[in-house]
Amino acid sequence: MTEDRDELHFLPLGGSGEIGMNLNLFGYGPNDRQQWIMVDCGISFADIYYPGIDLLMPDIGFIEDRKDQLLGMIITHAHEDHVGAVAHLWPYLRCPVYVTPFTAILLRSKLEEKGLLDQVEIREIPLGGSFELGPFEVDYVSLTHSILEPNALKIKTPLGNLFHTGDWKLDPDPLIGDAVDATEMGNIGDEGVLALICDSTNVFNVQSTGSEKTVRDNMIQLLSDKKGKVFCTTFASNVVRVETLARVAQSSGRHLCMVGASLKRNVSAARAAGYLKDFPPVVDEEEAGHLPPDKVLFVCTGCQGEARAAMMRIAQDNNRNISISRGDTVVFSSKIIPGNELPLGRLHNHLVDKGAEVITEKDAFVHVSGHPGQKELCQMYRWIRPEILVPVHGELRHMTRQAELGREHGIRKGIVPRNGHRIRLAPDGPELIREEEHGYLALDGQFLVSAEDEAIVTRRRIMYNGGLVVTLVLKPDFDLACSPEITLLGIVDDDEGGVIPYIKQHILDRYDRLPNRILRDDNALKEEIRIVARRSSKAFGNRETGPVTIVNILRPNG
Amino acid sequence: MTEDRDELHFLPLGGSGEIGMNLNLFGYGPNDRQQWIMVDCGISFADIYYPGIDLLMPDIGFIEDRKDQLLGMIITHAHEDHVGAVAHLWPYLRCPVYVTPFTAILLRSKLEEKGLLDQVEIREIPLGGSFELGPFEVDYVSLTHSILEPNALKIKTPLGNLFHTGDWKLDPDPLIGDAVDATEMGNIGDEGVLALICDSTNVFNVQSTGSEKTVRDNMIQLLSDKKGKVFCTTFASNVVRVETLARVAQSSGRHLCMVGASLKRNVSAARAAGYLKDFPPVVDEEEAGHLPPDKVLFVCTGCQGEARAAMMRIAQDNNRNISISRGDTVVFSSKIIPGNELPLGRLHNHLVDKGAEVITEKDAFVHVSGHPGQKELCQMYRWIRPEILVPVHGELRHMTRQAELGREHGIRKGIVPRNGHRIRLAPDGPELIREEEHGYLALDGQFLVSAEDEAIVTRRRIMYNGGLVVTLVLKPDFDLACSPEITLLGIVDDDEGGVIPYIKQHILDRYDRLPNRILRDDNALKEEIRIVARRSSKAFGNRETGPVTIVNILRPNG
Repeated sequence: MTEDRDELHFLPLGGSGEIGMNLNLFGYGPNDRQQWIMVDCGISFADIYYPGIDLLMPDIGFIEDRKDQLLGMIITHAHEDHVGAVAHLWPYLRCPVYVTPFTAILLRSKLEEKGLLDQVEIREIPLGGSFELGPFEVDYVSLTHSILEPNALKIKTPLGNLFHTGDWKLDPDPLIGDAVDATEMGNIGDEGVLALICDSTNVFNVQSTGSEKTVRDNMIQLLSDKKGKVFCTTFASNVVRVETLARVAQSSGRHLCMVGASLKRNVSAARAAGYLKDFPPVVDEEEAGHLPPDKVLFVCTGCQGEARAAMMRIAQDNNRNISISRGDTVVFSSKIIPGNELPLGRLHNHLVDKGAEVITEKDAFVHVSGHPGQKELCQMYRWIRPEILVPVHGELRHMTRQAELGREHGIRKGIVPRNGHRIRLAPDGPELIREEEHGYLALDGQFLVSAEDEAIVTRRRIMYNGGLVVTLVLKPDFDLACSPEITLLGIVDDDEGGVIPYIKQHILDRYDRLPNRILRDDNALKEEIRIVARRSSKAFGNRETGPVTIVNILRPNG
Repeated sequence: MTEDRDELHFLPLGGSGEIGMNLNLFGYGPNDRQQWIMVDCGISFADIYYPGIDLLMPDIGFIEDRKDQLLGMIITHAHEDHVGAVAHLWPYLRCPVYVTPFTAILLRSKLEEKGLLDQVEIREIPLGGSFELGPFEVDYVSLTHSILEPNALKIKTPLGNLFHTGDWKLDPDPLIGDAVDATEMGNIGDEGVLALICDSTNVFNVQSTGSEKTVRDNMIQLLSDKKGKVFCTTFASNVVRVETLARVAQSSGRHLCMVGASLKRNVSAARAAGYLKDFPPVVDEEEAGHLPPDKVLFVCTGCQGEARAAMMRIAQDNNRNISISRGDTVVFSSKIIPGNELPLGRLHNHLVDKGAEVITEKDAFVHVSGHPGQKELCQMYRWIRPEILVPVHGELRHMTRQAELGREHGIRKGIVPRNGHRIRLAPDGPELIREEEHGYLALDGQFLVSAEDEAIVTRRRIMYNGGLVVTLVLKPDFDLACSPEITLLGIVDDDEGGVIPYIKQHILDRYDRLPNRILRDDNALKEEIRIVARRSSKAFGNRETGPVTIVNILRPNG
């Protein structure tokens, strides 16, 4: 490798290996004196593997160490997995943030919550607008997706053009905004594209995804003659879908009532950005609660069965104004995000228990994805005709499948990146140069820690095995000043309360036989007692695994 | 209600409200002097709501209190959710157990593990056989399902006949055993059936389920020209499917290798019961490891992504003889049991990472369900023509849907039972009489405890919030003999290790201001310290919820 030649690098820190927390870096310049831009800065919602954690985001150590070389963050659209980490990570980077107007409104409100609004330089770019960041000339290119203002980026560099799709599909009738401009896309291809960096989420769908218009038409028909209350839940950020529900309400003579803060926030951001000009008036929850059942349609947050969101709260009778009863209809205008099957199953059962009819995307066409199926991916390949295909935004199996699809459709070069992979796109790309620092950060209350933080690892163990704390109080002569104190957290006892005496006896038996050199060495003593305590707890219950066990040694002063 | 008239009651203790742990009781006689039979006695595999618990089963308190009136347990088939709890619950009931031959073999091996084989009276009934239990005349009726010897029960009582389907579907070509005998079924209907107690699992499938034969034909074709190793994973109890994989191996010139103890156990039970007479010879793992890739087909346990099963172990390079590499094929001849999406996604990614092609039921017809779709349910209704439909074996939404389906197809009466519902079927049924004692038991190591045992509830809280143990050592004058000991389990600290000093300071501040009456009352003192410790831990991390907090007070003796 020539040390001084200019190179174009791609380095994802998030989103290549998972669906969520997208964060991609592009670098240009001589090796290790490159200038960087970041495309997207998103979060993921943590699954049960990170108990007690709500949000995960990429470890940005690599670019934090080079923050003087970071020219800016460019956000493609306002979904949490693309913009959600800005308010958490910007303080470590402090660079300008580029967004389109709708995204700007939502980002500002997040920054305001964190007290960062005055500090962050937000550069609002109109749809289709362009700007320069050092060696990168960036054009926002409007696509279609499940949110307002979804943008791809055309990034011109001295070593070739990049087309980074962001999240997209080809919606022939997106209802707000225009369908994708085939001429513009073809022109981008004609200019020559070195690398297409492309959404892999929906690659296992062999068809096209479908249109918001079809969902709207179907839902208007489906809900036209319902007698009871109608509840619909969807992703709050899908403002077009919310507008669809408003149209459903209008066409069936119902008033619209929005339940859940994030719905109201998104609708109001959309209006502030100049959309939803014909959005009908809404009624508030209290008013809606007094309307006849066939005169109201509720749009609710919580389409994933989230415990604290509107849909679950209503299903569990925890909303003071709104209740569900026999003859009502509940439509899940959404898909199941993997991992949410059990809470959603519980929510459906609660609703059926109340006598409601539950309609999901399995029963009727009430939802459409925002990501491209294979037919749309192939259309994109035909437009862009890249030299290199770089699938992103997927688990390994999604990205690998898209790489195959690209090969099958004539794209000569491809590379499946993983978080931390520093890939040379030009010259002579693609080639994996090396693995850079990467990982996950977890937000626990106010602390942003490694997702493998000891506390999180402990939670993961303790949830299955319980915890055991042993406290020994020692006199100066190493006699025990009182009986060992045994504290159980999540350990099953027998009917006679036998576990504590059992463990205690094993500890005392061991303690009595410990040599002086162990008694004098607190760490050795703790370890001896820890082993006997853990082993006896495990044996008492005949469990395969023992509890997380901690031993304290106390020495009263006098 | 006439106190002395004979009544026929139905009382499910498990399986009505969940898919799993089926346990149904039928009672006959005058109120509260009834004689009971139990149909099935199954377990469920616990989900994350019961952390650290593998198995759940019904709380049998109701029938345990009446065990002298329990005439016997009748097991319909050998799936764990029908027979798995016998070895755990029989010691509390000690009644005869009725099974068909294949089920008998598997049950005996379970009882042997528990040292119960000599105690349990197993009454082996041939397929199609009959027996009497007090007022109940029971016929085993062969149906088709995803296991050998799936039986319905025709139960004749003085107040009418019952038809309890067990698990079933209508497989026109089940490969082992015969298709369902339409004439026999029609005859049962002709005799008159008071109540049909029927499997609801697959009611949301509007079609028929399909045949094992079709799966076999498809898989033979699908895997005929693979070049690398072929791995197939399926449910170990589906012996017909395992035989299918043996046929796939034969027809593609491969040796069959079974990996995983439960596979071998099921195949050997099937052979002992006289099935699988043409099962080809198998090679062991070591031998298979030395065969050319295109000469071996591995059948593996672990189709749900279980961490310790064969498929995941192989995918993670933890099998000493068998490895997966580029060009190999892995077929998941199975469905995803809800809740297993995340581990299965991880398993798929591991396999793709190794360069294997992963084929699931989404990609090809490599699996078929064992439960009836709507078309089969309707056929059953036409055969049996019951007066009353009692959907069981489902969550509330499945049972409710089947009740609707029955109404739509002319069954005049129906009732959706829930665990613990004591339902009078005759005379003048169905009617819910009352709710009897019911619930779940959890197996934790060797202890069978309430699923709401304090330890399990604590695990549920501690996994999200961590644990905090505070130990105070008090002198006789209530001075602290040493600094409060703070033990953290799963609590995130800051970079400076600030959380312990922070909590300690708050405890000391509070302690100094406690009045004597609190100091003298251990419970009051613990509660005061618990609150300040929990609150300060929560505040330090700015978390929404505080840890499980336990306070110990120690008083050294002199």
